[in-house]
This record gives sequence, C-alpha cells and structure tokens, in this order.
Amino acid sequence: MELQALRDTHPEHWMKAAAIRMLAVDAVQAANSGHPGMPMGMADVATVLFEKHLKFDPSRPDWPDRDRFVLSAGHGSMLLYALLHLTGYADMTIEEIENFRQWGSKTAGHPEFGHAEGIETTTGPLGQGISTAVGMAMAEEMLRARLGRKVQDHYTYVIAGDGCLMEGISQEAIGLAGKLKLSKLIVMWDNNSISIDGDVKLSDITDQKKRFQASGWQVLACDGHDPEDIDRALTEAKRSKKPTMIDCKTHIGFGSSKQDTAKAHGSPLGEDEIAKLRETYGWPHQPFVIPNAVAAQWKAIGERGAEDRAAWEGRVSELSEQRQKEIARIFAREAPKKLSARIKALKKQISEEQPKVATRKASEMVLEVVNPIMPENIGGSADLTGSNNTLTADLGIFDDKNRKGRYVHYGIREHGMAAAMNGLVLHGGIRPYGGTFMCFTDYARGAIRLSSLMGIPVTYVMTHDSIGLGEDGPTHQPVEHLAIWRATPNTWTFRPCDTVETAEAWELALTSTDRPSCLALSRQGLPTLRREHKNSNLTAKGAYVLAEAEGKRQAILIATGSEVEIAMAARDILQEAGIGTRVVSMPCMELFAAQDESYRRKVLPAGPVRVGIEAALRAGGWDRWLLGERGRDARQAFVGMESFGASAPAPKIYEEMGITADNVAKTVRDLLG
Amino acid sequence: MELQALRDTHPEHWMKAAAIRMLAVDAVQAANSGHPGMPMGMADVATVLFEKHLKFDPSRPDWPDRDRFVLSAGHGSMLLYALLHLTGYADMTIEEIENFRQWGSKTAGHPEFGHAEGIETTTGPLGQGISTAVGMAMAEEMLRARLGRKVQDHYTYVIAGDGCLMEGISQEAIGLAGKLKLSKLIVMWDNNSISIDGDVKLSDITDQKKRFQASGWQVLACDGHDPEDIDRALTEAKRSKKPTMIDCKTHIGFGSSKQDTAKAHGSPLGEDEIAKLRETYGWPHQPFVIPNAVAAQWKAIGERGAEDRAAWEGRVSELSEQRQKEIARIFAREAPKKLSARIKALKKQISEEQPKVATRKASEMVLEVVNPIMPENIGGSADLTGSNNTLTADLGIFDDKNRKGRYVHYGIREHGMAAAMNGLVLHGGIRPYGGTFMCFTDYARGAIRLSSLMGIPVTYVMTHDSIGLGEDGPTHQPVEHLAIWRATPNTWTFRPCDTVETAEAWELALTSTDRPSCLALSRQGLPTLRREHKNSNLTAKGAYVLAEAEGKRQAILIATGSEVEIAMAARDILQEAGIGTRVVSMPCMELFAAQDESYRRKVLPAGPVRVGIEAALRAGGWDRWLLGERGRDARQAFVGMESFGASAPAPKIYEEMGITADNVAKTVRDLLG
Repeated sequence: MELQALRDTHPEHWMKAAAIRMLAVDAVQAANSGHPGMPMGMADVATVLFEKHLKFDPSRPDWPDRDRFVLSAGHGSMLLYALLHLTGYADMTIEEIENFRQWGSKTAGHPEFGHAEGIETTTGPLGQGISTAVGMAMAEEMLRARLGRKVQDHYTYVIAGDGCLMEGISQEAIGLAGKLKLSKLIVMWDNNSISIDGDVKLSDITDQKKRFQASGWQVLACDGHDPEDIDRALTEAKRSKKPTMIDCKTHIGFGSSKQDTAKAHGSPLGEDEIAKLRETYGWPHQPFVIPNAVAAQWKAIGERGAEDRAAWEGRVSELSEQRQKEIARIFAREAPKKLSARIKALKKQISEEQPKVATRKASEMVLEVVNPIMPENIGGSADLTGSNNTLTADLGIFDDKNRKGRYVHYGIREHGMAAAMNGLVLHGGIRPYGGTFMCFTDYARGAIRLSSLMGIPVTYVMTHDSIGLGEDGPTHQPVEHLAIWRATPNTWTFRPCDTVETAEAWELALTSTDRPSCLALSRQGLPTLRREHKNSNLTAKGAYVLAEAEGKRQAILIATGSEVEIAMAARDILQEAGIGTRVVSMPCMELFAAQDESYRRKVLPAGPVRVGIEAALRAGGWDRWLLGERGRDARQAFVGMESFGASAPAPKIYEEMGITADNVAKTVRDLLG
Repeated sequence: MELQALRDTHPEHWMKAAAIRMLAVDAVQAANSGHPGMPMGMADVATVLFEKHLKFDPSRPDWPDRDRFVLSAGHGSMLLYALLHLTGYADMTIEEIENFRQWGSKTAGHPEFGHAEGIETTTGPLGQGISTAVGMAMAEEMLRARLGRKVQDHYTYVIAGDGCLMEGISQEAIGLAGKLKLSKLIVMWDNNSISIDGDVKLSDITDQKKRFQASGWQVLACDGHDPEDIDRALTEAKRSKKPTMIDCKTHIGFGSSKQDTAKAHGSPLGEDEIAKLRETYGWPHQPFVIPNAVAAQWKAIGERGAEDRAAWEGRVSELSEQRQKEIARIFAREAPKKLSARIKALKKQISEEQPKVATRKASEMVLEVVNPIMPENIGGSADLTGSNNTLTADLGIFDDKNRKGRYVHYGIREHGMAAAMNGLVLHGGIRPYGGTFMCFTDYARGAIRLSSLMGIPVTYVMTHDSIGLGEDGPTHQPVEHLAIWRATPNTWTFRPCDTVETAEAWELALTSTDRPSCLALSRQGLPTLRREHKNSNLTAKGAYVLAEAEGKRQAILIATGSEVEIAMAARDILQEAGIGTRVVSMPCMELFAAQDESYRRKVLPAGPVRVGIEAALRAGGWDRWLLGERGRDARQAFVGMESFGASAPAPKIYEEMGITADNVAKTVRDLLG
C-alpha cells in the first residue's frame, strides 16, 4: 500500500505508526547514529501486532504468560523502544528515547536484555533473535504441557530481517522449529529487499518462502503497510499447527527520499530530509512530542492486557499453594532446597567408592541425581547424546508428540542449540543444559557470547575437552578453547578433575543466576582424586590444595581436569626424590581470581617453583598463576600444548606432547637447578 | 538397489567398490576406532565418480586443472584414503592405510590437508567441506574467465552428509553458490537418513531438495547403490547451468547387520560382523589385501587422467613465457616482486603526509596500491563493504555476469565467507581477503580455525576492533576477540596503530605462505605516528620502540592499535613531569614472541615500570609482556577493558573505561610510588 493511500484509508492507524516512525527518526538524528530505515518500514506491522494481537501488560512486564516479542533485526532498536514508550512501560521514559545511544541510557544502540523492561533478549548480532525465540517457543510448549493451559498459553512473535535469514544460524533455528512443530512461533519477515551493500539480490536469490516451507513451516504473506492485510495474516498465523513465517513486503525508510535504498538503513536521515518527512507523514510536532490523541490511543493499547493478566493471576491463585510456590521458584531461577543435600550425598558416595570414570560420565552421574528433583532442567545435545552423556533415564524426549519430554535432540546445530538455550532461560521456568564437543565451541560462539553478555545461567556441557579424545585428531581436539571460554567475561569455565569436582561444578552451574557455565569434560577415564569427603564445595573457591607437600615445600604443581591425575603422579615421583610438592587443583580460574588475596596467597605462596599442567595452550590464562601472584619468571614452567593436536590413541599423544608425570617431574627438577 | 542385485548385475563395479568398503572396515577395525558406515554407504557413488567422471592424475596431484574432490563428511576419511591408495597416489601406501589413526601416519582420523597428496582440504567439523568447495568453484570460475578454458576448466565435487546439511554454515554456502550460479559445483548428498543420535527425523524434517531449489540449485536424485543411475545423475549434473545437488539414497553400513542404524556410524564393526561381511561381499581376502584383478582395474582408473593432464601441459606450454610464469607465480602463492617497492613508497608518502585516518581506511589505501599489481587478490565483505573499506576501484564485482570481477558480495554470511576464502586459497591461484566486524569473528570461528590448522594465507579484515566503534554497543564491541585470535596457533594477529603499520601488516599478510592473518582495524580516525620513514618493515618484528625515553628511562608503555596514540599522549604528560618514558608499539604479539631473546630484551629491558594499554581484555596475552620477559608483578599494570563494553559515543566510553592518557600517566606515577 502506498503511503498516501494508507494515510487516507487508515488515518488513526497512520498516526499511531507515525509516532513510532518519528520517534525513531528523531532519536537517530539526535544521537547522530543509528538505523532509522527499519522502524520506518516495519512500523505498520508492529502497530497492528501490538494493537490487535500481542498479549502484554506494561505494568507487569514479567508476567509469565505474556506473549514474547523479539526484535531479531536488533539494529531497528528504536522500533522496540518506541513501542515500549508508547505503550507505557514505566522505565522507557521519553528522556530515555531522547538519550538514545548515550552513556548510561537504557536505550543502547541494540536492545540489551536487562537494560529496560520489555526487552526480552539482546539482539543485534544477526540471526540470534529468531534462534533465541525458538527456545522461548519451546519453553512455552513445555510449560503449557506441564502447568496447563490456564497457566501457560502464549505466542512468541519475531521480527526478522534479510540479514537474520541469511545467517546460517537461522537455518538451524528454522529446522529445529519446523521439526518441533512450534505452532505458536510467528516470524514476521521484514522483506524490504535491501541489505547494507545494496539490493539483497547482490548476494542472495533465495526464495525464502520455499525455504521455510521445506522445513515444515506455514508461510503467509502480507502487504507490510496495509493494516488489514497484516491483521489478516497474523490472525491466520495464530491458527496454524506449524510455526508460521509471514512475508511482510515493506519499504525500508518508508516515505523518505531514501526509501528502498541502503542509504536508509544505518545513518541519520538529516535535518532537511526529516523536515520533508514531517510533511509527508502529516506530523508537524516537535521531536519527541506525541500529541495527546495519539498518546492516548497508544496508552489504551498498553492497557488492553491488564484484564487478561488479572484473569491469569486469578487462575494461578486457585492452584494449590505448593504448585504456586513451585511456579514462583522456577521462574525465579531458584534451585530446589534439596539440591545441596543431593550433591553432598553423591560426593560422599563417590569419595568412598572411588570410581574411575570419564568426567563426561561423571556428569551423567550427577544429572541422574539432580534431574529428578529439578523439573526445570531441560537437557539436550547437538547430535552427540551418547558421547556427551547428557540424557538421563527420567527425561523423555521433547517433540511434537511428547511436550512433557525434557530432552531435546537439537540435531547437528550447535549454534542453534546455544541460542535456543538462551531463549529457554529468558522465557523463564526452564534451566537448560546442552552438550557438544568442546572443540565445537567455535560453532556456537555467537550465541555463547550472548549468554555471557546477558548474564543468564545456560550450562554448556563440552565433552572431549582435549587431545585426550585421541584418534579423531586436531579438528576435534580443542587447544585454544579453554582460552576462549576463560577470556569471555561473566562466565564460569569449569574443568573438573574427577567425579567429586564434577558434582561441585554442576552444583555451581545449577545455582548460578547471573552467568553461563562451561563444563569442560574428559572423554577418557579419570581416577577419583578427592577421596576424603568434604561437605563444602571446594570448586567454589576456584582452586585449592589437593595434596600438600611432605617435608619442605619446594614445588607447587597447578593443574586442571584430566591433568590433575598427572600432577598427582608427578608429585609421587618428586616426593620419592625428597622434593616436597604441593598439588593445586584449579577447576575454575574465574572463581579463583574472585577470591581475596589472602586465600590466593595461601594456595599459591611465594617461594616454591611452579609448574602449570593443562593439555591446552598456555594462553588459557596460565601466565597469571605462574608469573603473577608471587610467581617468578625463572621459577616457573608450563607443561601443555604448544600448537594443534594430532590423530593417534590418546596416551600416545600425551606422551609425544610431553604431558606426562615424568616430564613434569623433570621440569620441576630443572627449575630447582 | 539391493546388495545381491548389485553384485549380480554389476560384478566388476561391485568388486571395485568392495575394495573401498573392506579397506575402510578393516582399517577402522585395526585402529579400533573410526567410522565405517559412511564409506560402506558411499562406495558405489565414489567408485562411479572416480571411474567415469573425476578428472585427476595421481602422478601429478597438484595439476591446477584437476577436478577438486571434497569429502565434506570428513569422518568417512577411509573412503578418501582408500580411493587415493587404489588409484595410485604414491604417498598413500597400504602401510598408511594399515596405520589409520596412528601417530605419524598420513591417515588421520579426519582428512588433514597437507598430510597426503589428494586431500584437498581438511574436513571433519561438519559443513566445512561443502562451504570450502564453494570457494574452490569460485576460484575455478575466476581463473577460467581470466586464463581461459584451455588453462582452467574443471568441476568441484563434494560428498556431504546429513550433518553437513544441518549445520548453519551449509545454508550460507548454498545461498552463495546459488546466487553465484556456480554450475561446476556438484554436491552428492549421502542421504542415509541416519545421524549419531539415530534417525535424522529425530531432529530434522527438512525437505533438502526443496531447500536447495529455493536457493537456485538444480536438484537431481539417484539410487546411491546403482552405478548406472549414479552415472546418469553425474552426467546430467555436469550439464547444468546451476550448481547441482544430487540426492544419493544410500544405506549406511551397507550389507552389515548394522545397516541403516546409527550403530554403523562411528565404531568398528567387530571381528564377527566383519567375517560375515566378507561373505556377504564375496571378498574372501585378508585385511588390506587387494586381489590383482581389482587392483589393476583401480590402477587403470588412476591412469585415466594422464592423457588429459599431458594435453593440458601442452596447451600451457604454448602460452607466452610471461603468462606461464604468472600462472606459476600465483599458484606458488608468490607475491609479485613489485609489492615490496609499492609498500615502501606508500609508507614514505604517508610518513610525509601524515594523514589522520581510521586504520580501516588506511587498509583501503594499501589495497588501492596493491590490488592493481596483484591480480590474485580477491576481496570481499560479509555485507559491510562501506564499513570494512574492502572494495577498491579496480576490482569489479564477481558474479554470474562478470566472472572477471574480483570483489565478492558474500552477503550476511561470515562463516560461509571464511570457508569460501579457505577454498579460494586451497584451489590455488587466488589470495583472498574478506571483511566483517571484529566482533563477528564469533560467527566465522569454525572456518577461521581451519585456516590456521591448514596453514593457509587467508586475510581477515576485521574492522571496528574495539569500543572505539561507539554507539552500536556491547554486541558489536569486541573485548575478548584479540584473545581469541592470539590464542589460535599458527596465526598472525595484527593491530596496527596507523597507516604505516597498516601497510606493513598488509605486506606481511600478502607475503604469508603458511598462515592466515587477522587485521584488527579501527573505526575511528588515528594520527600518523610513524613520521620518520624507514624502509624496513618494523611490524615484522612484532613490537619495536616507537618513541624512546628522554632522560632516565623509568617507564615503558606498551600499546597496540588505536591505543598507541594514547600511549604517546601519556608519554608527553610523563616526560613533562620528568619521567623518562619509552613507548613500544606492539602490532603483532605472535611475531614479537618469535624474535630472539636479545631483541625482546632490547625492547623490554628489566627495570622500568611497565603499563600495557589496549581497549580489550588483559587476557589477550598481556600477562607475558607485563609479568614475564623481565617484568615484575609490583611494577606493572594494564589499562584496558575489564568486561563488556557499552553503547555511547566512543570518546565517552574510552573516558568511562579509563583508557585515557591521563589515567595511563597516573598509573605510571602510582607504580613509581
């Protein structure tokens, strides 16, 4: 629909949408940076969605049964901020809009989860929003099945652009949603035919409708500037038994002289252009001024959901007290009270039985104990279930036939899995974990970084965490990946040495409320090294003395994961030779760095020579513990990897790389001179 | 086609294919690890491909006009090794096959580029092969257009599995190939309906044929066990004007009791099963024994291409000597002799003119100078051309209308771009560079790691390399990405401080023969700091003294990229206060680490306090230069980022993060006490 026709035929709609458009245009101009074209193009779709379809209540932005709205094309952030402001979210004041993209404002360049209410997820890196929304829609299906329709019954809406659909992660998301028949997921594609370099056809000729259909989606289309057509498509989408993609044909930069060009995408329109636009739009108001009549209409839209929300509260209040408490608990991300006791009991049992198992298997032993008491735990793997040991007996498979299943076959989709897990947490009521090989951190990095940036407790079960995986060779052997995880802010990287530490790491991951965890787990069997039961969680300190030196303390061996066994064996050799040797197990560098200096000094005192041992690169944070923290260059060494791995049986690779007890002992002796 | 019918109707074919199958089965059994199911399933397709279609000559594995064969489903490595052995590649001896997956063998668990002739690329991480092959097919189109059909005219064949097609990167590859109409790219999909977790339908219901068609591919199908049907499909594929996907319906683990189950995928079949298989296959021979008649047939297949190759050599020998030399040069990855002089001239000019430009712009200035003399340079960007400054005036756009174009609009496909660049280098004759934002390293990591592992000179132009990008906020601001690049073995990470260093970094990247380079470039303008022209490439040393202390040397400031300017300003403040301050510019930590100790000591002598300055996390390798190399814990500090960034104008973020000359000067004063 052309602009003038739209104004003529739908004057009230026009003014509501114009409010969004002008807020976006003026905010970008004021910031002298940002993306006006997309909000201008999608304002009509967004207006119809919020006015006629979206179930939401700005006065209760955390209402668990609200519809979720995800702006996958995150550069169009002003579209979202304008909607939140106009519909009455308390913290999205006009001052925030005026301070778009300024220090300390809630209105960051791209929507940042946690900055303001109503921002359901952080978007901006393309393709993340649509993929995160898949997780939200999964959560809704799971909770609807478990808690009942009266408690959970909502849609997840996404606005995605051409960029989102061109990113590979979108295929993983589309494939997963199609297989899982997530019928309450509705993606509105901002089909404006423009990307940054110019016409989308410069780089892509994909028939998106056919592509979505190929993965089991319903595909609809509408004129993205015709409110009736938009309404019709959304109405039809909600009736589908499949996820729905709506091809919304729009004009980027609608109404400006830059309309339908890449110039409208990512920079301010300029004062002259904006002046003209005010005429074209019939919007004579000053920047950031919304006339009362329009403001009132938007306010009414914002109040539309209060009744539904109140009815929902009524329904919930009729549930048993226990049920209500449980719902509150899982949405508050609180671990059940029993968890701590369960972990302690398992640790005690392990310390006694002293099994020799791979830590991936140890992880499964922990999950067998915790999954039955944590219904919010949703497991899964990117097609490595048997290798990641992520499936426990009680879970059942989540699919379109079994919405109560708690295990997800994510398929060979590491990136899609990570994004879906973000969505599962963000939705609320779910605590997800998912497995793949540690090396394939690479494939999921885009979404992993968002877990960290958003500060949400996703647990990544990364098995086969070193050359210890053996014959599969260097493509499958992580060497730099511990460095990558440890360099990522706001993240816990655990590399437990045995089953007891694995249980402690899991306890920390399962009680985290504000950051993701990586569990780096071995393929190969490892002995139980924590043989004396302690109730306290030693892994929570990050590092601790596992074995004290006998006699004069001349050396400290610091090791993680599968190499702690090697450190202990080296200690035997050294003690035999009369060299007092302490072994420090360091399952989590981040947590050790967070301890106060007096504790760190106790664990790593000045004086003894230090040798770090890890089947990975020294770049993974070792310099600090060897050179810093009272260490000295001439009195330290690292035994680990120096480059990529190799294909051979694991013990042979360890031997060839010199990651052996003998070499550690020799290194200590050389340092002692 | 059923097994017995195949044996009955095509006895000679059957025995040739059985040779592949049994080599795979026996090698996996001997190694006690590996993947027999895929070679058993795809042996018929591979046999027909090598017998009737593939243009190759084992006696000249580097023949530039050979067809390329990529085993994207790299876990089926024994399929490739068996083919190379049977067709007579000299270094793929039967001993290598017997030593499958053993230390020092050429037969790694997954095919490793460089281990043996005929392995065109490293595969194993799923989806990489098909995406790398897109680059190979692009290279062929480019070189055919430029050198003529007589010199370059070949196909690129890929075997891809369900896993390859489920990975998101495959969508990027499919989209790019479809858009570019790479008609000589032929993908054979091993449609065996099985993934590791079980039936593919557990996680995916995608209609792959429809999906490929949606992106402009021709789609064919064949019975993957019927040689005539396979031949028909391959023949038809070669005639297409679009890239072709052939749906090859196969049985994983063909003929074994584990056929059509996930059990056939990734572990040895076991002695009993193999004994039965020998009967089923009619293959009574001992492991690793190929009967003479079958060996002779395979040998003849291997010799089939010699004539074509000789004819090709004849055609090339008729070219002008200059043309021949140029072809030899680009395939040998040799930089043109003129390059060094061009770079020197540019450096001299810059030192005199002293422009203040962003290093992304500086990079463009370098490319404007070098692209005209390096026709092998192929540029591109993942839809950020204007931001990455990667397009120079002389290139022209590569697409189906202009095969001589040298610039690729990769689309919003960072991962696909990186893999395609790997393919462009591996094909030979091309030196690719491609741009995106530094932060989106995350999206491309899977393929970047393979650049490093394979040791191939891809150049990654990563602009907007810090909080200096400003308003786009933390999703677009790299803080851990320098750490990621620097932790990746066999890689040069450059972060130049001005146009001169940018030119030097480019010279190193463009003359690299054995590793990829990352150029981390600023969005914001930077002054020329190298104002005294030097012919020698100082960046090649990794770090050097940019400004010496005046008076007693009390402090050394070490900085990279955009923070060198801050270091210089801090030095002014400190010198003003009588504190002799040296500034070390450190554009490449890896190269500095590679210098001998005497040079490193000269640059970083013991004594002065040290402050590192980088708008990124300290985890990016700083501990070594501050604590190690004669540093001391109490006499060092780092001024940089401590967590994620923020959305605001760049100068404001720098100020709030304390990355300022004043704070650096204060930090030095505090350290001096």
